[in-house]
Amino acid sequence: MKSKKSTSALLLIGAGADAVDVRYASGFSAPDPFLYVQTGDEKCLLVSPLEIGRALKLGPSVTCATPDDYGMSQKARRDLGRQAAVFLAALGCNNALVSPRCPIGVVRRLEKKGLNVKVVKDPVFAERSVKTPKEIRALRQAQRATADAMKAAVALIAAAEIGKDGGLKVDGAPLTSERVRHAVCVRLLEKQFHAEEIIIAGGDQGTDPHERGHGPLRAGEMIVLDIFPRSETTGYWGDMTRTVIRGRPTPEQRRQYRTVLAAQKAALARVAAGVTGAEIHQAVCDVFAEAGYETGRVDGVPQGFIHSTGHGVGLEIHEAPSVSPAGGPLAAGQVITIEPGLYYPGVGGVRIEDTVLVTETGCTLLATCPKRFML
Amino acid sequence: MKSKKSTSALLLIGAGADAVDVRYASGFSAPDPFLYVQTGDEKCLLVSPLEIGRALKLGPSVTCATPDDYGMSQKARRDLGRQAAVFLAALGCNNALVSPRCPIGVVRRLEKKGLNVKVVKDPVFAERSVKTPKEIRALRQAQRATADAMKAAVALIAAAEIGKDGGLKVDGAPLTSERVRHAVCVRLLEKQFHAEEIIIAGGDQGTDPHERGHGPLRAGEMIVLDIFPRSETTGYWGDMTRTVIRGRPTPEQRRQYRTVLAAQKAALARVAAGVTGAEIHQAVCDVFAEAGYETGRVDGVPQGFIHSTGHGVGLEIHEAPSVSPAGGPLAAGQVITIEPGLYYPGVGGVRIEDTVLVTETGCTLLATCPKRFML
Repeated sequence: MKSKKSTSALLLIGAGADAVDVRYASGFSAPDPFLYVQTGDEKCLLVSPLEIGRALKLGPSVTCATPDDYGMSQKARRDLGRQAAVFLAALGCNNALVSPRCPIGVVRRLEKKGLNVKVVKDPVFAERSVKTPKEIRALRQAQRATADAMKAAVALIAAAEIGKDGGLKVDGAPLTSERVRHAVCVRLLEKQFHAEEIIIAGGDQGTDPHERGHGPLRAGEMIVLDIFPRSETTGYWGDMTRTVIRGRPTPEQRRQYRTVLAAQKAALARVAAGVTGAEIHQAVCDVFAEAGYETGRVDGVPQGFIHSTGHGVGLEIHEAPSVSPAGGPLAAGQVITIEPGLYYPGVGGVRIEDTVLVTETGCTLLATCPKRFML
Repeated sequence: MKSKKSTSALLLIGAGADAVDVRYASGFSAPDPFLYVQTGDEKCLLVSPLEIGRALKLGPSVTCATPDDYGMSQKARRDLGRQAAVFLAALGCNNALVSPRCPIGVVRRLEKKGLNVKVVKDPVFAERSVKTPKEIRALRQAQRATADAMKAAVALIAAAEIGKDGGLKVDGAPLTSERVRHAVCVRLLEKQFHAEEIIIAGGDQGTDPHERGHGPLRAGEMIVLDIFPRSETTGYWGDMTRTVIRGRPTPEQRRQYRTVLAAQKAALARVAAGVTGAEIHQAVCDVFAEAGYETGRVDGVPQGFIHSTGHGVGLEIHEAPSVSPAGGPLAAGQVITIEPGLYYPGVGGVRIEDTVLVTETGCTLLATCPKRFML
């Protein structure tokens, strides 16, 4: 007896709304959007003629086609929704399951063409948060490259002279956030890692966690170094933060640093399969509360511990699970960051972050890197 | 008399589906998704507390808020659709206009909350294709950085020795696509430009226009160098391609190069306000047809002139207008690439690309860079 043909298919937009899920499921990525359809165990790609050569190299596990194979009109080629309608029809599907990220334009087009569209819940591939051994290797490699770049950044700041005005100097010129960032990026490039948004932020710049940092670095100011590169080859990310100071810290800076370090230790000690992200986050909050560090807004600007404790890392820099008040139970094989921080304008920002693999009984660092505060 | 409050608002997803349009309209970008709402002339951002510091620096032209300002629940904070519903309600809007890229999850949530959602047609900001003087400066700067990096790549290949096996060598080690790419990326980084997907593809690799290139480069093989970096500071892109060969080309390679060069000249000569992208594309096709170069598939692999002649460049590397069979009339102030190419496995790929500013009477190169074929 012939098996009954499934008429339902998962439709995802590669290199677009669902780029990472498609890369995860098919192994394929491209610069311009393309379509991925999964019916039962069958995986199909519809890619531009420009990409078919690379797509065919995926091997027999993925069926590859181009708009030419379906005689698509020029009009269809310019419209992902039309392409999807033709592609799904050709595969005998009249029910499309799409992710919550699917563009409304594509959904409306499919509905117009008579398809029934249902939105699946996130995550589309729940299994993505638990990493395979191959993924863990890629993440470890990424985190090692991150640690290597971090050491280079710290060494550069440590080697700086302190000018009469308190500004840091290397080779006679001011050491700026931009110079450190450049040195880090070049180091990462040598290992085929790209980093676009890394943070090298001194003084009050470091109290705005998304300020990347600019201009001269100064002695006596805490400098937040947050490095998160992506591998060109595997697509996986590393993520690490250190905070350093050149010259002598004030007692207030020293206490703030020590408190964040203690909070990170407390959080790392809690991580294990079955423990919730919320519990780990609470462990950090407890350390801060006990030390008297308050969180809130002053003149509209948030201060204190103003972000969550961590997040998953994989093909996305921020992905499931969450280590925050909303975080559920962790599972062995998940890879997460633990990155408490405290931010007070006038004193500075401190954040210390490592990326760890969750195990049944605890966690292991994906890469080690010294925590030097005073340089 | 008080003006009647508009109840309709354009809702865009910053750093997500509508990242570039939001950056264009508000000047703001961030690593994680945020919301942009435009009602009449009023521009409003809803950003995370992490981003509010940077957002407030935009000045009085944009109203900035965080989920805290609306007392949003933890549930709402984790869901862009819920955030959007609260934000729009607070602004007194019950009709949301969204882009075709708006995630279906957001649309469904808004509808569930009683809002009326209408999808506007692309482009959301049609004026984006015609660049302002400030944008032209940013694009010129990007293209100059691209030309500078191109010269470095060409110089590196020109300086290579030819080993006994025909492989190129620099400093005693094989010159690979990866080494050239690294040199180009470092050069770009020095000017605060990032390039992730640049193509350094020799021999048959160059016949697959989206193969980035890998492994040793060889004498007698044509090498396609396609460099498209994005400015870290402005967000604008450059785009340039040259094709070179180290050692003596075959008559076939030489004729293919000359034909592409002639096609590019013919296309550039046609560019002017009012001329359609289709006409310019046809000019390229005519040169190829006259020279006897055919386009089609051989063993399933496309050969010949297998892509369009060009595309707009701005905050996106590929944006309107299109220089292809579908391309409409150009306008002065648009910035486009002209990049004909011919690809034949066994001979190699040739592509020559410049980025130009369309003027009333013709076009001007945003940056010049020699076209050396034989190195």
